[in-house]
Amino acid sequence: MWEDDEIREECGVFGVYGDPAAARLTFLGLYALQHRGQESSGMAVSDGHHIASHRAMGLVSEAYDHGERVNDLEGHMAIGHNRYSTTGTSNVDNAQPFMVNFKRGQLATAHNGNFTNTGALHLSMEETGSIFRTSSDSEIVLHLIARSNESDLPGMIADALRQVEGAYSIVFLSDSQLIGVRDPRGFRPLCLGRLGDAHVLASETCAFDIMKAEYVREVKPGEMVVIDEEGIRSFFPFEEAEPAACIFEYIYFARPDSKVFGENSDKFRRRFGRQLAEEHPVDADIVIAVPDSATTAALGYSEQSGIRFEIGLIRNHYVGRSFIDPDQSMREFTVRLKYNPVQGVLRNRRVVLVDDSIVRGTTLNQLVRLIRGAGASEVHVRISSPPIRHPCYYGIDMQSRGELIASQTRVEEIRQYLGADSLGYLSIEGMVKTGKEYGKPGVGYCTACFSGDYPVIPEDSLNKLMLES
Amino acid sequence: MWEDDEIREECGVFGVYGDPAAARLTFLGLYALQHRGQESSGMAVSDGHHIASHRAMGLVSEAYDHGERVNDLEGHMAIGHNRYSTTGTSNVDNAQPFMVNFKRGQLATAHNGNFTNTGALHLSMEETGSIFRTSSDSEIVLHLIARSNESDLPGMIADALRQVEGAYSIVFLSDSQLIGVRDPRGFRPLCLGRLGDAHVLASETCAFDIMKAEYVREVKPGEMVVIDEEGIRSFFPFEEAEPAACIFEYIYFARPDSKVFGENSDKFRRRFGRQLAEEHPVDADIVIAVPDSATTAALGYSEQSGIRFEIGLIRNHYVGRSFIDPDQSMREFTVRLKYNPVQGVLRNRRVVLVDDSIVRGTTLNQLVRLIRGAGASEVHVRISSPPIRHPCYYGIDMQSRGELIASQTRVEEIRQYLGADSLGYLSIEGMVKTGKEYGKPGVGYCTACFSGDYPVIPEDSLNKLMLES
Amino acid sequence: MWEDDEIREECGVFGVYGDPAAARLTFLGLYALQHRGQESSGMAVSDGHHIASHRAMGLVSEAYDHGERVNDLEGHMAIGHNRYSTTGTSNVDNAQPFMVNFKRGQLATAHNGNFTNTGALHLSMEETGSIFRTSSDSEIVLHLIARSNESDLPGMIADALRQVEGAYSIVFLSDSQLIGVRDPRGFRPLCLGRLGDAHVLASETCAFDIMKAEYVREVKPGEMVVIDEEGIRSFFPFEEAEPAACIFEYIYFARPDSKVFGENSDKFRRRFGRQLAEEHPVDADIVIAVPDSATTAALGYSEQSGIRFEIGLIRNHYVGRSFIDPDQSMREFTVRLKYNPVQGVLRNRRVVLVDDSIVRGTTLNQLVRLIRGAGASEVHVRISSPPIRHPCYYGIDMQSRGELIASQTRVEEIRQYLGADSLGYLSIEGMVKTGKEYGKPGVGYCTACFSGDYPVIPEDSLNKLMLES
Amino acid sequence: MWEDDEIREECGVFGVYGDPAAARLTFLGLYALQHRGQESSGMAVSDGHHIASHRAMGLVSEAYDHGERVNDLEGHMAIGHNRYSTTGTSNVDNAQPFMVNFKRGQLATAHNGNFTNTGALHLSMEETGSIFRTSSDSEIVLHLIARSNESDLPGMIADALRQVEGAYSIVFLSDSQLIGVRDPRGFRPLCLGRLGDAHVLASETCAFDIMKAEYVREVKPGEMVVIDEEGIRSFFPFEEAEPAACIFEYIYFARPDSKVFGENSDKFRRRFGRQLAEEHPVDADIVIAVPDSATTAALGYSEQSGIRFEIGLIRNHYVGRSFIDPDQSMREFTVRLKYNPVQGVLRNRRVVLVDDSIVRGTTLNQLVRLIRGAGASEVHVRISSPPIRHPCYYGIDMQSRGELIASQTRVEEIRQYLGADSLGYLSIEGMVKTGKEYGKPGVGYCTACFSGDYPVIPEDSLNKLMLES
Repeated sequence: MWEDDEIREECGVFGVYGDPAAARLTFLGLYALQHRGQESSGMAVSDGHHIASHRAMGLVSEAYDHGERVNDLEGHMAIGHNRYSTTGTSNVDNAQPFMVNFKRGQLATAHNGNFTNTGALHLSMEETGSIFRTSSDSEIVLHLIARSNESDLPGMIADALRQVEGAYSIVFLSDSQLIGVRDPRGFRPLCLGRLGDAHVLASETCAFDIMKAEYVREVKPGEMVVIDEEGIRSFFPFEEAEPAACIFEYIYFARPDSKVFGENSDKFRRRFGRQLAEEHPVDADIVIAVPDSATTAALGYSEQSGIRFEIGLIRNHYVGRSFIDPDQSMREFTVRLKYNPVQGVLRNRRVVLVDDSIVRGTTLNQLVRLIRGAGASEVHVRISSPPIRHPCYYGIDMQSRGELIASQTRVEEIRQYLGADSLGYLSIEGMVKTGKEYGKPGVGYCTACFSGDYPVIPEDSLNKLMLES
Repeated sequence: MWEDDEIREECGVFGVYGDPAAARLTFLGLYALQHRGQESSGMAVSDGHHIASHRAMGLVSEAYDHGERVNDLEGHMAIGHNRYSTTGTSNVDNAQPFMVNFKRGQLATAHNGNFTNTGALHLSMEETGSIFRTSSDSEIVLHLIARSNESDLPGMIADALRQVEGAYSIVFLSDSQLIGVRDPRGFRPLCLGRLGDAHVLASETCAFDIMKAEYVREVKPGEMVVIDEEGIRSFFPFEEAEPAACIFEYIYFARPDSKVFGENSDKFRRRFGRQLAEEHPVDADIVIAVPDSATTAALGYSEQSGIRFEIGLIRNHYVGRSFIDPDQSMREFTVRLKYNPVQGVLRNRRVVLVDDSIVRGTTLNQLVRLIRGAGASEVHVRISSPPIRHPCYYGIDMQSRGELIASQTRVEEIRQYLGADSLGYLSIEGMVKTGKEYGKPGVGYCTACFSGDYPVIPEDSLNKLMLES
Repeated sequence: MWEDDEIREECGVFGVYGDPAAARLTFLGLYALQHRGQESSGMAVSDGHHIASHRAMGLVSEAYDHGERVNDLEGHMAIGHNRYSTTGTSNVDNAQPFMVNFKRGQLATAHNGNFTNTGALHLSMEETGSIFRTSSDSEIVLHLIARSNESDLPGMIADALRQVEGAYSIVFLSDSQLIGVRDPRGFRPLCLGRLGDAHVLASETCAFDIMKAEYVREVKPGEMVVIDEEGIRSFFPFEEAEPAACIFEYIYFARPDSKVFGENSDKFRRRFGRQLAEEHPVDADIVIAVPDSATTAALGYSEQSGIRFEIGLIRNHYVGRSFIDPDQSMREFTVRLKYNPVQGVLRNRRVVLVDDSIVRGTTLNQLVRLIRGAGASEVHVRISSPPIRHPCYYGIDMQSRGELIASQTRVEEIRQYLGADSLGYLSIEGMVKTGKEYGKPGVGYCTACFSGDYPVIPEDSLNKLMLES
Repeated sequence: MWEDDEIREECGVFGVYGDPAAARLTFLGLYALQHRGQESSGMAVSDGHHIASHRAMGLVSEAYDHGERVNDLEGHMAIGHNRYSTTGTSNVDNAQPFMVNFKRGQLATAHNGNFTNTGALHLSMEETGSIFRTSSDSEIVLHLIARSNESDLPGMIADALRQVEGAYSIVFLSDSQLIGVRDPRGFRPLCLGRLGDAHVLASETCAFDIMKAEYVREVKPGEMVVIDEEGIRSFFPFEEAEPAACIFEYIYFARPDSKVFGENSDKFRRRFGRQLAEEHPVDADIVIAVPDSATTAALGYSEQSGIRFEIGLIRNHYVGRSFIDPDQSMREFTVRLKYNPVQGVLRNRRVVLVDDSIVRGTTLNQLVRLIRGAGASEVHVRISSPPIRHPCYYGIDMQSRGELIASQTRVEEIRQYLGADSLGYLSIEGMVKTGKEYGKPGVGYCTACFSGDYPVIPEDSLNKLMLES
C-alpha cells in the first residue's frame, strides 16, 4: 500500500487523431486515467491549424469544470496529461501538456517517465543561451527538438530523444500530427487503439474502454508512431536495448481492468497473490485486503491457500485529499478517517492481511493496530511484492533510500515495527517467474527498486530526484 | 443498488455532551456518517450559555472548509446533521440543525425520519397564527414545543412529539441540555455511546468508532434521553407501540462496520446473501457484486453456494457528484464513467451479479450489458432484498410508486428489461426470518416498501412526498 | 464623512408590479440603490401563483452572479432589498426579503427602518408560543400579520403595523399583491413611480432613473399603497402624527441625483454648504471636499464664499471592502490606501476641507495630517451638518453614545483632536431653516441625533441597538 | 474618456531593493498603480539566494487574496507588475513578472511598453533553435539576455536591449540585483525613490506616496540603474535619441496625484483645460466633467472661462467589471448603470461637458443624450486632447485605425454623431505648447497618435498590434 504521505510521481498520457470530438474523448480518457495523476490535468487540441490548450490544478472533473471547459477546445486531434506531483510547491506552471512555439510553429507535449541525464543537458543548453521556465523533462526535450536540424518533425523528435536517456512514454501534438514514442527499454506503458476511423494512444487500455475504443497493440519499446492525414506510420529510430517494463505497473499502478505491456494487470495481481500464498503459507481463518489496491492479490492468496476471503476493512471514499491535519491529540484518528474495520468479520479471527507493497510502513502499522483493536486474534501481513530497497530513477517517486523501511531494516525488524504476528514478502524470484510465465512473450522487467539492478545508470541520482516527470 | 438518479432522503444525526472538543467530535462523527447525507451538513454548539451554529451545502469536508470552520465553534455540547435531498431546489435554508429562539431561549434540532401527519398540523398551526419558513418537519416540531405549556424542556419536547406521528430519531440542543428521542416504533436507529466522561448519540456506531467512543446501547423505541450537568436520564413519554425497525438499514443504508438496532449490519448483509443463495441457486462460475454496497451480500452468496467470489466490476471513486451530463451521443458512456468491468475475470464466465436492491433498474440494465460486453457468457442477477413495490413514508425517499419498476412489473418482465439470464429476489419471508434469527431479540421490522404493510397510516401519502426530513 | 469602521445600518427597498421583466427591473433598481446597503441583497418574485426568491451576501452584482441568477426568477411582480450590516456576525440568514408561509400562503417582506418597541412584542409573542429564527424586525411583523384576524392581507398588515412603533418604509409581496407602507411620521423615504403600465416603489428615485421609470410622488407618511390586478389603491390606516423625515438622508444617505421626501438631495447638500459658509467663513485659498460624499456641499461652500473649489483628494475606488489589515507597522498606511492628496493643488495653500459629518473623527484626523503632509499651510475643517450627539433609534446605526466624538467633547476639543486650524459645524438652526426653505412644503424633520429631541421614545434604547433594520 | 469597451494596454511596474518587507511594499506599490493594469498582477521576490513568485488574474487585492499571499514571499528585494490586457484570451500564462532559469540562475522581469521589431527577432531566434511559450516582449528580451556573451548581468541586459527598438520601462530581478531600464526616448515613465535605506522604482510616484517613500528623480531616458549590495549605479548603455515622453500619461493615464516625467500630471490636466477654454470658449451656465478622469481638466476650463464648475454626473463606483450584458431591450440602460445625471444641476442649463479624449465615441454619445434627458438646454463637448487619428505602437492599445472615430471623420461629423451643440478639441499646438511650458526642461513629447509623427518606425505595424506589453 502506498500511504498518502508517500505520494509518487507517475503520470498518465493520452492522444487521439481523427475524431471531431477530440477534446471530449481526451476528457474521457484522462478521466479513466485519473489514478495515474491527481494533481493537475491538461490537454492541447488542434483543428489542423491552431493548437488551443487548457491546464488546471485538481482532479479531471474539477480541472475542466466538470466538462464545461472542454467545449471551447475545437479540433480533431488532441493530447492530454494527468500529473502526479512530488513536491509541495506544485503549481499550474508545471501542469502538462507543455506547449511552445518554435520554428515549425506550435508544439505540445505530454510525458510519462523520467530522464536520467537531464542535468548535463540542462547545463550545456543554458551555456549556449537557452532559458528554462520549469525544471520539467518536457521542456528539455522541446529545446532539443527546436535545436535539431532535421527536416521534419518526426526526425527532429527522434534527434532530440536520441540525446536523452531514461524512461519515457511521450506524446507530441503539432498542428497536423500526433506522435507517440516509447523509450528503447519500454519502462512505461503506451497503448495504441482505434475508435472508428480515429487512432488513440493511452498509458492504459481503461482509457480505451471508457470510449469503446478497440485495443490494437502496445506501442513497442523504442517505437515512434506518427499519425496524420496520411494514416499511421511506425519507426524505430533508436538503438535496440534490453526490455525493462516496470513491474510495478502490474503490482500497483495500472488499473485492474487495464491492459499494460500487452496483458491485464488484474491477472498478475491475482498470480502474485497465489505465489505469495505458496511462498508464505499461514494457518489462519480469513484473508482480507487493504482496499482497494490489494483486493485482487488477496483473492489470489485466498484461492491458493483455501482460506476464506472477507471484507475486513471498509475504505472511506469521501476522504478529501486536502483534509486539514487533526491536531496532535487527534493524530491517532488519522487512519480511522480512511479505513473502518468490520468488527463482525474480524473478532476472534486469525487474519491474513494482504497489501501490495510497503514504503515506510507507517499506515500499515496503524492498520494492524486497528485490526487487532477490532478483535482479531492474530494478524499475518503478506505483501504481494518484494521489499522495496532502492529508489526508482524511471518515473516513480519513491522516497529517498533513507525513507524506504526495507532499505535498512531486515524483515523481522519490519514485522516488529508493524506489530504483526508474521510478515511475508513475495520473493523477487517468485515475482519475476510470475511475470515471465503470464506476461506477453518477450517482455523483460525492471526490478531495480527491489534488486538495485538498474537497466540505465542515472547520471546523478540525487539530482534526478529533483526533476519532475 | 440505488442509482445516482434515484437519490433518497435519509439523514444522519449526531450529539455529544461533556467534551470541550464538542465541535471537533461532531465534525468527526458527521464525517463517519457521510454516507447518510451528502447534500448539506451543519452543527450547533453550546458553551452552556450560547449556541453558535454553522450550516453549509456539500460534503462534510467541504461544508466545514476541511475542518477550519469547526475551530470557531466553542463549547462542550453539540448536535450535528448530514442531509440528503430529495429535490433539485435544495438550498442552505433547509440544512439542519434548525435553530430558533423561543420563550426558553435558543433551541436547535436535527432530525432523521419523516412525520406522517404534518399536513394537518401545519394547517392548524397556520390558522392560529404561526408562520413557517420551511416545509421541514423540524420546524413543525419546534412550533409545537414553543406552544407547549409544560414546565421544562424535556416535558415540552415530549408534549410536542406526542402530537406527531411517523418516524423520527431526533436530537435537541438547548444552551444546557442534549436530548435524544426515538419514535415509539423505532423506525430509524439512534445509538448511545460514551467517550471518557462525555455522552454521545449517533445514527450509527461508525461515528463512535472514529473517535474511539464506546458503544453503550441503542436508544430504545419511544425513549427520550436527557443529558445535562446532572448526568443522563431516560424517559418513556409515549404510548408503547409495535417495534418497526427499518430493515433497509440492514440491506443498504448503514455502513457495514456499523451497529444499528443493536447489531452489525454487515452480518445481516452476509446472511441475506446466504439466504438468497438458498432461495435462488444457479449453476455459475463466479459471483461478483455491484460495488461497494453489495459486496458483503455477494460474499454471503458465494459462501453458501460455493461459487467463487471475484472482483468483476471496479468502481471509479473519482466520479464527481456534479458531473456534467454527456450529450446525447455520449449517453452510453455514463455507466462506464462509474464502473469498469474486469475482462480477465469476466470473459467466458457464467456470472452471478449480486446487487442489494432495484428501484428503477436503469443502471442495472446498463451494467448487465457492460458485463456481457466484457465477455461474460451468462449473467444471473440476484437481489439481496425483495422487490420494492410501495413508497416509504418514514424517511426514505423512494420514487413515487409509478417509478418503482417492481410496483407494476412482474419479475420475469424485469428480468427481460435487465437483459439477464435469470433474476432472483430475496423473499420477504426469507428476509424477515433472517432478521428475526440474527437480530437483537425483540426487534420487529418495517417491511412496508416490500409488503405494503404500513405500521402507521400516513395522513396523506401524496402530501408526504413533498415534505423533507 | 462616515468612516469605514463606523458602518451604519441603512437599507434600500424596491418593488414592482405589472412588468414581465420584474426580476430584471428589481436587479436594476437594487443596483441603483447599492449605496444604501452593501452587505447582502435579495429579491422575491411572484408569477401570480408562486413566490421564488434569491438572497446572497455581497454587492448586488455579486449576489446575483452578475445578473445570471435573475433569469431563474420568473414573474411580473417583485420586491427587493439591499442590506447594511451592523455586526461582524452577519450572514445570509439575515438577508432580506424575509419569506414565510402563513395561513394565507406565501408572504415576503423587505424593510428599511427600525422598530422601537420590538423588545416587548418579542417577549409577549414568545410567551404565547412563537418561535423566531432571527432578531429581525421583519420577522416580528410577519408574526403579527399571521396572528391578525383581519379578513384580507392589507387589513392584516395594517393590524400588525398598528402594534409597532418607530421608523419603517416597508414593502410586502404576496402571490398577487404588492404593498408598500410608510410609518406615520415618515422617517424613511419611499417613492412611487410608473414604468409603462407597471407600478414601481423605491427608497430613492435613482432606482427609477436607471430603468427610465417616471417619478409619480412619494408614498406619504402613514400611507399604505396596495397594488394588484385592480390597480393601485391608497389607505391611511394609522393615526396621524407629526412628520419627521430623516434629515440625514439629505446630508449623506441619498444619492445626489435622487429625490427623497419629494426633493433632490443634491440641492440640499449645496444649500447646506452655502449655509455653512455663511456661518463659518474663513480666509483661505481653496475649498476641497472629502470625496465623494461631501463634494456638493464643498461646491456650495465655494460658491457662497467665493473661494475656489479644487480636487485636493483623490479617492481610490479599487479599495476592496475586505482588505486585510496591515500589521501594526503599516497602520499609518491605511488612510493612504483610500485617499491620495494632490500635492500640486495643496502645496502652500490655505485649505478649507469640507466633510458631511463626523462620527468618531479617526479618519478625518488622518486626512488632516495627510493634507498637511502634502504641503497645505492651513487646514480649516467645515462640516455640513451639526455635531452628532445622540444615537438614532430609527434605522441608522450610529455608534453608541460613547463613541460619538461630539457627544462628550466640545467643538474646540474636537478641533484639537483633528489637528485642524479651525473647525466649524453647520448649526441645527441653519440646517432646519435650509430644510424648511428648500424642502417640499409640509415636510418636518427628525433632528434627534443632533438635538436629542426624539419624535418617538424608544422602549429600550440599549435593546434597540441590538436589533437590525 | 476611454470607454470600457476600448480597453487599452498599459502596465505598471514596481521594484524595491533593501527592505525586509519587500513583498509587502510591492503589494502596496502595485495597489497604488492599480489604474495602470487591472487584468492580472504578479510579483517576484528574492531573499538573496532564491526568487519566489506569485501571479494571478484580477485586481491587486484579489490577486493576492487580499494580501495573504504576500506573506509567503520572503526577501528584501522584489519586482511587481500590473497588466492590462488587449485580448479576450487573456490568461495567467501572460501575467508578469516573467521568470526563467538561464545560465546565470534565476531571472525575473516586468515590462511596460512595446517593442517595435520583435517580429524579426522572434523569427531569427526560432531559426536558431529557441522556443517561446508566450508572444510577450518580455520573453524575447530574456532570450536575448540568455544568448549574450557579456560577463555580467547588467552587460547582458544592455546587450539584449540594444537589439530591440520601441518603448520600454522595464525592471529585472536576479537573486542579488534589481535593475531598471528606460528606453533611449523615454516613452514610458519610470521613477526612482528612496525609503529609508531601500531603493524603490515605480511607473508613477503615487506608488511612493502610499509607502511614504521619497521621490528622488526619474530614471532618465536611456538610463540603466543597477541596485545591489554595493548600492546604486547608473549607466547609459544606449545611443542617445530624441526624447519622446508619451503625452497621454499627462492627459489620462497617470494618477492626478502622481509625478511622471518629473512633473505632476494634475498640473497638466488643469493647464490643458485652461488652454482648451482659450481655444474653444462658449457661452454657457456650467462646466461639468465626465468623472473621474476629466475632472481636473474641467476645473481648468472653469477657471479660465469663469463658468461655474458643477458635479453634473455621478459615477457609480460599484459597477463590476464583469457585468453581464443586458439583453437587447436593455441596451439603453448600459450607460445609466455607470453614470447618473444630477437633474437639479442640469435642468435648463447650458452645459459644457469636458472629457479627456475620444476613441470611438459611443459612450460619449450616450452621455450627451443622458444629460439632455436630465433637462440640459445645450450640451457643448470639450475634449482636453487633440483628435486621436493614429494607432500607438509604444504600449497603448488604441483601437486599430478603423475604429478611431477621428481617423476618418471630421470634427463636425463627430459633433453630429455625439449629438452635441458644439465640439472643441484641444489643438496639437496648444497641447505641445502647454507641455513645453509646464513640463520639466528638456522633455520632448511623442504626439504620434494625434499627429502620425512616429519617433520610431515600427517594423510591422499590423504585427505589432498582436503582441502584448
